[in-house]
Amino acid sequence: MLTREQNERLVRTNKGTEMGTLLRRYWIPALLAEEIPEPDCPPVRVQLLGEKLIAFRDTQGRIGLIDEFCSHRTASLFFGRNEECGLRCAYHGWKYDVDGNCVDMPSEPPESRFREKIKQTAYPCVERGGVIWTYMGPPELEPEVPELEWMTLRPEQRFVSKRLQETNFMQAMEGGIDSSHVSFAHRFNMDDDPMHAGTAGLAYLKADTRPKFEVIESDGGLLIGARRNVDDERYYWRITQWIMPWYTIIPPFGTHNPLGGHAWVPIDDETCWAWSWNYHPTRDLRDDELESMRRGEGIHAKYIPGTYRTLANKDNDYLIDRVAQREKRTFSGVEGIAAQDFSLQESMGPIVDRTKERLGTSDAAIILARRRLLAAAEEAADGELPGTRTEHHRVRSASVLLPKSVPFNEGARDALVVRPGEEFVSI
Amino acid sequence: MLTREQNERLVRTNKGTEMGTLLRRYWIPALLAEEIPEPDCPPVRVQLLGEKLIAFRDTQGRIGLIDEFCSHRTASLFFGRNEECGLRCAYHGWKYDVDGNCVDMPSEPPESRFREKIKQTAYPCVERGGVIWTYMGPPELEPEVPELEWMTLRPEQRFVSKRLQETNFMQAMEGGIDSSHVSFAHRFNMDDDPMHAGTAGLAYLKADTRPKFEVIESDGGLLIGARRNVDDERYYWRITQWIMPWYTIIPPFGTHNPLGGHAWVPIDDETCWAWSWNYHPTRDLRDDELESMRRGEGIHAKYIPGTYRTLANKDNDYLIDRVAQREKRTFSGVEGIAAQDFSLQESMGPIVDRTKERLGTSDAAIILARRRLLAAAEEAADGELPGTRTEHHRVRSASVLLPKSVPFNEGARDALVVRPGEEFVSI
Amino acid sequence: MLTREQNERLVRTNKGTEMGTLLRRYWIPALLAEEIPEPDCPPVRVQLLGEKLIAFRDTQGRIGLIDEFCSHRTASLFFGRNEECGLRCAYHGWKYDVDGNCVDMPSEPPESRFREKIKQTAYPCVERGGVIWTYMGPPELEPEVPELEWMTLRPEQRFVSKRLQETNFMQAMEGGIDSSHVSFAHRFNMDDDPMHAGTAGLAYLKADTRPKFEVIESDGGLLIGARRNVDDERYYWRITQWIMPWYTIIPPFGTHNPLGGHAWVPIDDETCWAWSWNYHPTRDLRDDELESMRRGEGIHAKYIPGTYRTLANKDNDYLIDRVAQREKRTFSGVEGIAAQDFSLQESMGPIVDRTKERLGTSDAAIILARRRLLAAAEEAADGELPGTRTEHHRVRSASVLLPKSVPFNEGARDALVVRPGEEFVSI
Repeated sequence: MLTREQNERLVRTNKGTEMGTLLRRYWIPALLAEEIPEPDCPPVRVQLLGEKLIAFRDTQGRIGLIDEFCSHRTASLFFGRNEECGLRCAYHGWKYDVDGNCVDMPSEPPESRFREKIKQTAYPCVERGGVIWTYMGPPELEPEVPELEWMTLRPEQRFVSKRLQETNFMQAMEGGIDSSHVSFAHRFNMDDDPMHAGTAGLAYLKADTRPKFEVIESDGGLLIGARRNVDDERYYWRITQWIMPWYTIIPPFGTHNPLGGHAWVPIDDETCWAWSWNYHPTRDLRDDELESMRRGEGIHAKYIPGTYRTLANKDNDYLIDRVAQREKRTFSGVEGIAAQDFSLQESMGPIVDRTKERLGTSDAAIILARRRLLAAAEEAADGELPGTRTEHHRVRSASVLLPKSVPFNEGARDALVVRPGEEFVSI
Repeated sequence: MLTREQNERLVRTNKGTEMGTLLRRYWIPALLAEEIPEPDCPPVRVQLLGEKLIAFRDTQGRIGLIDEFCSHRTASLFFGRNEECGLRCAYHGWKYDVDGNCVDMPSEPPESRFREKIKQTAYPCVERGGVIWTYMGPPELEPEVPELEWMTLRPEQRFVSKRLQETNFMQAMEGGIDSSHVSFAHRFNMDDDPMHAGTAGLAYLKADTRPKFEVIESDGGLLIGARRNVDDERYYWRITQWIMPWYTIIPPFGTHNPLGGHAWVPIDDETCWAWSWNYHPTRDLRDDELESMRRGEGIHAKYIPGTYRTLANKDNDYLIDRVAQREKRTFSGVEGIAAQDFSLQESMGPIVDRTKERLGTSDAAIILARRRLLAAAEEAADGELPGTRTEHHRVRSASVLLPKSVPFNEGARDALVVRPGEEFVSI
Repeated sequence: MLTREQNERLVRTNKGTEMGTLLRRYWIPALLAEEIPEPDCPPVRVQLLGEKLIAFRDTQGRIGLIDEFCSHRTASLFFGRNEECGLRCAYHGWKYDVDGNCVDMPSEPPESRFREKIKQTAYPCVERGGVIWTYMGPPELEPEVPELEWMTLRPEQRFVSKRLQETNFMQAMEGGIDSSHVSFAHRFNMDDDPMHAGTAGLAYLKADTRPKFEVIESDGGLLIGARRNVDDERYYWRITQWIMPWYTIIPPFGTHNPLGGHAWVPIDDETCWAWSWNYHPTRDLRDDELESMRRGEGIHAKYIPGTYRTLANKDNDYLIDRVAQREKRTFSGVEGIAAQDFSLQESMGPIVDRTKERLGTSDAAIILARRRLLAAAEEAADGELPGTRTEHHRVRSASVLLPKSVPFNEGARDALVVRPGEEFVSI
């Protein structure tokens, strides 16, 4: 439970807010590279942390991410012409380069130097892992470009998607941090999901539905251990990495399956992008895996064609199927791992009122993540922040059997870091 | 005409408001029994007086009406599993019984007593007359369960429906109290409606279009007499019962026709349920009558399939037919008694601004009903309230011929009370 | 750039606002005459300057424009019966004449004189040029009825349309005042538009894309001259008339083509009517011209059938066609002169934030128009106002070649006034 004031501090991310200042200290996954596939392709609207921006790839392939609205009379650059190394406003022809410089102002006299006074807001971008990343913070504090494991692999080894979620980013991320809900919301989906089926981990998971949680601060965020009894001597540990400010890494089921994870990025205070990726560190993804992901299965989602909004959404009660619920094909009546999560999260309203919660021991990770974010926010102006360095990103989640006497972070130490090209640890 | 402050007092019904406190002292028709037809059927969202609730029927047939949002992390119980005598949240499995007790908390350790501290808001329910009733007030002030005549009959003798109205409940109810509009809004519908056709009453009604109103306080609300001249010696009286806080009983046309009435129940401040019933105290409804009612004729309404929203609604200008209006098949161009009323009431906006009204003598009943509600609101905390006792409900409306010298409430005294199994009085 | 306070003064037009008081001093184009085509036809909703009204034509052909909501209980007169020289409310039968007098009150006793106390707000109307005009200001200050040239011609010589624009009227009008955008937003539409094709003016326009602006106050508003170099001795001048408070007259291309212009009229603060007309002062419009206009070409627009909302609108990104944009068939990807303008204007949001603009020399006319409106607003209570007299309306825009030494308002003096039945001046 939070006070109203704490909740406000946590969820507001517009420019000038406390959390907004914090999040602007990190590189942000802004859009899929395929959204602006080639030089001089149409510009694309992008909203991040409440700021409306326009993304484009110029004639030389450079990526621009600038204020959506022209400095002149604030018409949208969505209608702009992307040509000859710049984006030209369709209203009066002012033209901007990827750095936001006004490089042409044809409505003014040739001798005018007015355009030199114009500077369109522009954020630096890089392309990594099929995603365009941007940095919206103070230039002098720009951190290293992220190096999550999937970003460092060949394209054939990974699949990345994004979907619109109609809640605050924090509420979505709390679902990723909270592995306790897996035993319920996704209960009847485990067996027939080829990603989980037949693993020893799944058998342990179902045998003990009341895991105990231990949460430890890591350099980059949190290590969240959920332990279940196996026998008198051993625990089954599922260990989730939370990397600040918005990455959650899913613990694996077996080493034959791809790994997965998410980023939860504010669009505005009431919507966010749920980024999802699967990858395998030592092999290409198989065609059947890729097809399933493209169909929106597993942690990905089915879209309304031509959009990143999900087909199952709040306007249609997430296509709830009460027969499937009764027949225990789905726990909540909603189909698909992703939709099972976001249907429940969106049902709390776009910004959940955390003054009304009643948190238990299973919510320990959520409580600590909030605390760590709020503490970091106090250092946001110029402090050294967890999750800003590439070594914070080179981590893995894991699922392991350990003797009861061994602390999970010690027993799984090697399993919890990326060893490039090496198999990960999972049972 | 009201002051702005009086209007606000009258229309606001959320928890803690004056009118909200008053209305919570009464049993409330909450949903149709058929919406939760059998044990362990899917839960149903119900909003009343601004409170979002979820209704379910447990394994033993007991009815639960509890806060829609789980005490834990406020996910909606709409996605819950209704099984084994309780409703289980789909997020982390917390389970509630019909009294709001948390009877299982599988995400916490077995030894945890945390669940004993959890109490989900729950309101008592009873099923009467095919309707589920709830009481949302202080337990120590719970009144008798209502006994409107139709509630006491066999199912074959009655038909009950509900529809969504997109106005404040008060504005809808004022249409039910105000019998003066019948001569206009429904003018061209009288003759071809088998419910009215050929009755002596209808002839008197059309002969004198300027009824005079006399309104008298009854034990439960108001007796509203509208008199019309018949000849030198007699008046034709149509007498409407208003039973606090939201029941309006329609005066009859002939004894061969079913009786009818309404309840007007706030969903929130800008929408309400219009409950409508027809019944005959001494016979079963005929098949042709039931079919007509199911089709949405008379005081009932046609729905958008799968919803309780009407097919004719503000988004389509109530399917207004200007040719039918010009040809005097309908007065306003809108088809159907119910739609004729709610189209006009919704056209005033969701909450009518009563500071702008200009009320005449024909509005006497509305004026007194408002006054009585505002007066009762001052006693709402713990006073004895009109309309809370079953004797207040055992009344009938009536239409009678009386000598001019006889006060209507005396002349119609016997006609105005329910005499079980006995024919009602109407010409 | 304006201060926030100046912007608010400029855009708010409800009753009691500064700009609302100013605009109410002028006759207002309210609706097309064809919307109420004949006596006793159905009434039509009309919203102007934030006031919700209802227009009707009574049995004798007189035009009424009265408050939409009945004085009695505020039901909408949209459902009213228009018959026997008045509009009768469908709720309780109160009936109003075109002057807002309550001429029948059948719900009250015959002897009642209550109806004499009722006065429904009513505005005087006249029909001119196929348009119904109203005056919503103080009766004692009512100005002359407008006499724009097209209003004085035979119906065969003109075509008038209106469309809904989803912005404040000011933002829309600034597009009409600002002829600088023509070289960009409409760049690739000039050649294939038969209205422009092959004229000498078009060649000059394309040869010099950086016109210089000179703006002069006229009696009725502004004279906006845009000059382009032709050779050492001559300028090509395109001269736009702005007549207060909302008329913009388009300079012509050649004398064989119809003239055109607009009025920009607030519906409420976030929407306006864009009125558009074409006419020829010395001949009837040809069938091919009329068909093209009816199809929504040129300055007119294609509608969603049965509405005045445009088919290309903000909900469908104005049907943007990126291929047409790339292939230089349209500059912004949006098809049609009108849609090219309103797509950009609506992209600024319903009320543009003028504190964020960066205005150049090409925005001189906009700056002066704002200044003149704000200055006039200070005289709005009872001052003599520009644009209120018919002589202010009897003006033309023009396109002319002038020696460099001649001021444009002197050189084009004769071209800038209406000479009835005489050809206009254009190259």
